[in-house]
Amino acid sequence: MTKTAKCVFLIVLLAVVSLNIAGQTRTTVERYAAGHQQEILAEFLSLLSIPNVASDKPNIRRNAEQLRQMLGQRGFAAEVLETDVNPLVYGDLRVPGAQRTILWYAHYDGQPFDPKLWKQDSPFKPILRDGRMEDGAKEIPNFASLKTVPPGARVYARSASDDKAPIIALLAAIDALRASGQKPKSNVRVILDGEEEASSAGLISSLPKYRDKYRADMMLVLDGPVHSSGKPTLVFGGRGIATLEFTVFGPKFALHSGHYGNWVPNPAMDLIQLLGSMKDENGRALVEGFYDDVPPFTPEEKRILASVPDDPAELMQFFGISRTDKVGANLQEALQYPSLNVRGLRSAYIGSEARTIIPESATASIDIRLVKETEPDRMIRRVLDHIRKQGFTIVDKPPDDSIRAKNPRIVTVSSGSGGATFAGTKAYRTAMNDPSSVEVTNVMERTWNEKPVRIRTMGGTVPMAPFAETFGFPIISVPVVNFDNNQHSENENLRLENLWKAIVTFAALLSM
Amino acid sequence: MTKTAKCVFLIVLLAVVSLNIAGQTRTTVERYAAGHQQEILAEFLSLLSIPNVASDKPNIRRNAEQLRQMLGQRGFAAEVLETDVNPLVYGDLRVPGAQRTILWYAHYDGQPFDPKLWKQDSPFKPILRDGRMEDGAKEIPNFASLKTVPPGARVYARSASDDKAPIIALLAAIDALRASGQKPKSNVRVILDGEEEASSAGLISSLPKYRDKYRADMMLVLDGPVHSSGKPTLVFGGRGIATLEFTVFGPKFALHSGHYGNWVPNPAMDLIQLLGSMKDENGRALVEGFYDDVPPFTPEEKRILASVPDDPAELMQFFGISRTDKVGANLQEALQYPSLNVRGLRSAYIGSEARTIIPESATASIDIRLVKETEPDRMIRRVLDHIRKQGFTIVDKPPDDSIRAKNPRIVTVSSGSGGATFAGTKAYRTAMNDPSSVEVTNVMERTWNEKPVRIRTMGGTVPMAPFAETFGFPIISVPVVNFDNNQHSENENLRLENLWKAIVTFAALLSM
Repeated sequence: MTKTAKCVFLIVLLAVVSLNIAGQTRTTVERYAAGHQQEILAEFLSLLSIPNVASDKPNIRRNAEQLRQMLGQRGFAAEVLETDVNPLVYGDLRVPGAQRTILWYAHYDGQPFDPKLWKQDSPFKPILRDGRMEDGAKEIPNFASLKTVPPGARVYARSASDDKAPIIALLAAIDALRASGQKPKSNVRVILDGEEEASSAGLISSLPKYRDKYRADMMLVLDGPVHSSGKPTLVFGGRGIATLEFTVFGPKFALHSGHYGNWVPNPAMDLIQLLGSMKDENGRALVEGFYDDVPPFTPEEKRILASVPDDPAELMQFFGISRTDKVGANLQEALQYPSLNVRGLRSAYIGSEARTIIPESATASIDIRLVKETEPDRMIRRVLDHIRKQGFTIVDKPPDDSIRAKNPRIVTVSSGSGGATFAGTKAYRTAMNDPSSVEVTNVMERTWNEKPVRIRTMGGTVPMAPFAETFGFPIISVPVVNFDNNQHSENENLRLENLWKAIVTFAALLSM
Repeated sequence: MTKTAKCVFLIVLLAVVSLNIAGQTRTTVERYAAGHQQEILAEFLSLLSIPNVASDKPNIRRNAEQLRQMLGQRGFAAEVLETDVNPLVYGDLRVPGAQRTILWYAHYDGQPFDPKLWKQDSPFKPILRDGRMEDGAKEIPNFASLKTVPPGARVYARSASDDKAPIIALLAAIDALRASGQKPKSNVRVILDGEEEASSAGLISSLPKYRDKYRADMMLVLDGPVHSSGKPTLVFGGRGIATLEFTVFGPKFALHSGHYGNWVPNPAMDLIQLLGSMKDENGRALVEGFYDDVPPFTPEEKRILASVPDDPAELMQFFGISRTDKVGANLQEALQYPSLNVRGLRSAYIGSEARTIIPESATASIDIRLVKETEPDRMIRRVLDHIRKQGFTIVDKPPDDSIRAKNPRIVTVSSGSGGATFAGTKAYRTAMNDPSSVEVTNVMERTWNEKPVRIRTMGGTVPMAPFAETFGFPIISVPVVNFDNNQHSENENLRLENLWKAIVTFAALLSM
């Protein structure tokens, strides 16, 4: 053989061996998951049964204690880390001879909910359906006793997808490796956030205190759904977020709309005109400088963004919409820009409670999604400047008579989360050609025999920017749950097939 | 004397005699009222003690029965008139030799209430305060035994002002005339509405059935407060009203604002842009043709409107506003135009309940006040046309998939009161130079030695248009209660000085 031929042979051999190893891991772990569905499910259901809204302190603590025990059972040095707010759960699993340490992140708190909207007794009494509820799937009674669940079955519960399933999958992956006499290749550090749905304040503020515990060579974030195509997915960045709440003030008390309509200004209409001035009919922000910090895409970036197999027609049909906002050429491009979203509106009453009044105030809650290039403070300043340019005076509390007497349009602006500052959560992004990015991509490709969908910046927010800034390590998200999981809404669910696959994915990443 | 001098002399003599007669009536009636405070108050308190929310059928009936008896005691042929809904109370008092018949209208039902907000045990356990509660006035205990009440005293109870005081005043006026050997000059027909605060449906639908009972030469409406200046007031018209509710639809279910913000359109923003297109920053409607039906004011009309002693600076300070809408040159002009008022807004959540979602829908409740020249149907059609011109498709129920697939902007429009039609309540207006208008104005001027405040069209709605259309008679409102009576709110009250004066006013009008 020539030297070249030898080289090619070795490369091919290496590739075949790697594929085999990945293939072997996959087969072994799949077999393990299939044979242990009942116990994996039992641990999952037990965790889902503990209410986990961030403000519910006693139950948050119950979640943390249970998770600490679950890590301890797998040989982690596990502890509950106290923060200013909700506790974190931390586990450290040292692997003799490991060349590096990977920090795995997930969160155990869940979104607030309206129990009336759930089609089950409680979001914390998980039920199993034999498919998607919206498609008419039926409840499977007494499913806890099933040895294997039907394909397509889904667990309905708060945090089934967001974000308790990944925790269960990671632990099951470790169990699966162990059961086949293997162990992780890198040291495993796990950090479980107890306040992600309420800004991760504890995680972020604890960074200086627990810096040594978080130190690692790479961070893998287990949160969010896979791409809508259902393909294996990797995410290299997340948008940041800032929330704002505006209250516009009208007369000191609600007035009879007959006696004063056409003379006393209506604060709901003032708010409408203020918000209306912020966006055009194509959904593009009109706030000055809103998109200025985002550089144009390179041809390579445009190519990668276009390579994501989004199916806009299918998505639009699924969502029941027949037009889209026009911020980018496609969904992926749109997500590389900051967004401005009216998430809630309230003034006086509607429906049978409506009264013929000029309301005394009107309130809007707003979220601004940020990208890596858009600093929260600068974006908030732009919005506040815009508000002032519309003739509004911004005050920090409901106006007294003298403020009212001097200012024709008055608005309070708060952070929208009760806080006094507008800190916001920064965006982050790991380069897709970083060596770790390439390695993780390759592991995924070998495990699933297809290139993963690569998302440059996902639309949602995970509070990873301070970690990127502190440690400089690459941060890559490995979402595993089904796309149609009703995350953040009522009837959240997990397609169990995604759980079984997540166990394989995590086992492969633990083995790299 | 020359013929001219004779004529001037006779006119002056006539004026002096008229003034004397009016002055005499005033003195006589004032003396009667002062001497009979205890018994007038006793009858008033007894009536106020019967709960009168329109939906409280048993108590509505108790009110009706008591009122029938009260009319009967004054010699009226009195009866309870059944309607589709709450009963009316009707009384007919024939005066031998009378040249005409006047129909007096008032209502005996009251606004619903929230007992927690009342600063007394119950809105139906009247209490007396020695002034205005908001100014720190104290309760006067055991006031039922007082022979005369202190000046400035107020009765606090539901319907003290709106609208039981005028009923008591009218009956006391008849008593006062009788006590001095006089009697009304015109036949007196009284109609007491049991459902005014809930749309007067019974009164209106009973028009064909009781047409002969309602027939008269003039209608006097006893409802509403006097002008804020406290001066004697006459009102010659009322605005009509139509209510609409718009719901704009977004995605079929609320979506994560991170994952889809910048791509899935936000229905709250669509609603904002729709409503924002309807008015300019000065509060003028931008709906095509909205003001077209209202002819310009004649110089005389402008003069009369400007003569109303509104104090805009004082009103603005009272309401805590520092700008006004610019629909007319002043408040009175503004009330001669239709108005478009956002009375309620709702989309998803605000405050601590806010969630980072793109809402699935957004709703606004609207009231459109109408004037005589603006037909409800035509105005509603203009608003619907405007909505369509903004690119919205109007549908009559939440859209299904096929509607969603075809229409980029979808809105349901309902009547806002649960009804399927947009009928609305028409406005009415009696010409201020109609002979009856002039006569009533003169009686008021002679009685109180000052020109009454003349309101061309008041802002609020009373359902008198069908009476004007059916009988063609002039309709004039004679409001008598204090301006600051907390009508429609908690702690409704009547300043008793207004009751004593109302007795004089009504005695004078009974004597014309």
